[in-house]
Amino acid sequence: MQRIVVLAGGIGGARFLLGLKQTAPDAEITVIGNTGDDIHLFGLKVCPDLDTVMYTLGGGIHDEQGWGRSEETFTVKEELAAYGVGPSWFGLGDRDFATHIVRTQMISAGYPLSAVTEALCRRWQPGVRLLPMTDDRVETHVLVDDPEAEGGSGQRAVHFQEYWVRMRAEAPARAVVPIGADQAAPAPGVLEAIGAADVVLFPPSNPVVSVGTILAVPGVREAIADAGVPVVGLSPIVGGAPVRGMADRMLAAIGVETTAAAVALHYGSGLLDGWLVDSTDAEAVAEVEAAGVRCRAVPLMMSDADATARMAAQALELAAEVSG
Amino acid sequence: MQRIVVLAGGIGGARFLLGLKQTAPDAEITVIGNTGDDIHLFGLKVCPDLDTVMYTLGGGIHDEQGWGRSEETFTVKEELAAYGVGPSWFGLGDRDFATHIVRTQMISAGYPLSAVTEALCRRWQPGVRLLPMTDDRVETHVLVDDPEAEGGSGQRAVHFQEYWVRMRAEAPARAVVPIGADQAAPAPGVLEAIGAADVVLFPPSNPVVSVGTILAVPGVREAIADAGVPVVGLSPIVGGAPVRGMADRMLAAIGVETTAAAVALHYGSGLLDGWLVDSTDAEAVAEVEAAGVRCRAVPLMMSDADATARMAAQALELAAEVSG
Repeated sequence: MQRIVVLAGGIGGARFLLGLKQTAPDAEITVIGNTGDDIHLFGLKVCPDLDTVMYTLGGGIHDEQGWGRSEETFTVKEELAAYGVGPSWFGLGDRDFATHIVRTQMISAGYPLSAVTEALCRRWQPGVRLLPMTDDRVETHVLVDDPEAEGGSGQRAVHFQEYWVRMRAEAPARAVVPIGADQAAPAPGVLEAIGAADVVLFPPSNPVVSVGTILAVPGVREAIADAGVPVVGLSPIVGGAPVRGMADRMLAAIGVETTAAAVALHYGSGLLDGWLVDSTDAEAVAEVEAAGVRCRAVPLMMSDADATARMAAQALELAAEVSG
Repeated sequence: MQRIVVLAGGIGGARFLLGLKQTAPDAEITVIGNTGDDIHLFGLKVCPDLDTVMYTLGGGIHDEQGWGRSEETFTVKEELAAYGVGPSWFGLGDRDFATHIVRTQMISAGYPLSAVTEALCRRWQPGVRLLPMTDDRVETHVLVDDPEAEGGSGQRAVHFQEYWVRMRAEAPARAVVPIGADQAAPAPGVLEAIGAADVVLFPPSNPVVSVGTILAVPGVREAIADAGVPVVGLSPIVGGAPVRGMADRMLAAIGVETTAAAVALHYGSGLLDGWLVDSTDAEAVAEVEAAGVRCRAVPLMMSDADATARMAAQALELAAEVSG
């Protein structure tokens, strides 16, 4: 049985995993999920990326939206607003609230996030092993300009969710800091899964705040680089723009161009063995290969399940090719 | 302006307060609410009696039911059940959940329950000052027979809500213990309100687990007895049975007969100056008066707002009579 490890953020990672499951139904898939965008809201611990993966693979996702629950209602949120309690910019629905209530109760009782995630997955049966990257608290903050900032620095740090959801990433991000990452330990099973993997995949997730944050947990990048198995990624940038989301904002913050080739070079040949770019970015192939990363141009739009499954199949083919 | 202090449990106390507000619209009413039936559910702090008073006076109560919110939905509860997380016997609705989320968040942030209650009341504008009896944790437990009990005692203690809601008070209660009450301090404002009152009323609330628990907070009974103002109660027992609820179970546990007279004698003439019994219990008047408590027989069914307002008016009249 093929053992595949996938580093996943939210929507892009979750949809890719649907395709991967379709194309490799017998594979043993371990997902290492980003927790840098976790946030405490109303005293509850919310894990947007883990939940997006869990809901998507478990059949509970709001399909069009890509996040949150299907057939969702917003009674609790309306009531919180009636109490004057915010924030109102984060759209937690009633079904979603239940997940955060269960998670928070378990964490308060002393369970680590990895055990909580396993418990939640007993309901959702995602068909993969879903591990948080760490049980420790990591919170991605974004540095933005603020002429009014106290201390005269002219900048302030906002939680990634506030930047992404409330501010819609409109202000330029000057830096992205995964606070706590340097002190975090990989969650139980993370390094073991990488060590036992036959292939490691980077789905078309955000290279900075999703895959990048997972790689920032000490030991993870090294374990992948040292695993001696093919590491293949799919470009989230197509035609010089993010397929979805605002990855360009994040790439600019770390000084990386918004091109399919630049993202591959950012990961680097020390980590990455293969890279898929979209057919429209065929000119990137030579540049990526010159940097020592095998590269193919194939259709990379996850427009439906079959198209996504073909992308996953091509990633696995490229992995076989680089290892062969 | 007349200053009235009311010791209130849940439904009975809340409905009585509606009548009192109608009959004495200009009075300054302070409600000392029972918190002995508070319970932690799903990691959230639930205060059933305080909320019943707040929702009833604030226009948010489920009228027919007497507790919980009107136009309630149960999405969160269904989702918790889908996670296999209980208990399922306590019917928390989505609107109600929001109250408990706000309360729990504030308590986690360090606010005492009295400050939280004041904050919640800013939305509900109940038209009374609602104080929890204490900011300390008090939990009423009921001792029931259990042949399987560990240690061979043959009994076990269950939380009052579990006894009342899940077990429907069907097993005989051997004892009622307000755990923590002996160590609790009256909440800020409680003793001051009693000291400044012109009259103290005991609505037809449960004399054991509602009014009795409030009186068990050290200092409260003494403050009422020493206030030197009329203390008038209304019998929750009519024709030898509770008007609603299962007060007979609770009275049996403390060895008090389920009669209007026995409840008055249980409070005692050292505390109580006046007592209203229902017209059908006219024979109790002589017995209660013989014990030194002024007693009148009047209709005591809170069948509608006007009937309830008349009961409140008669309680105030009796207070005037005993003080005159």
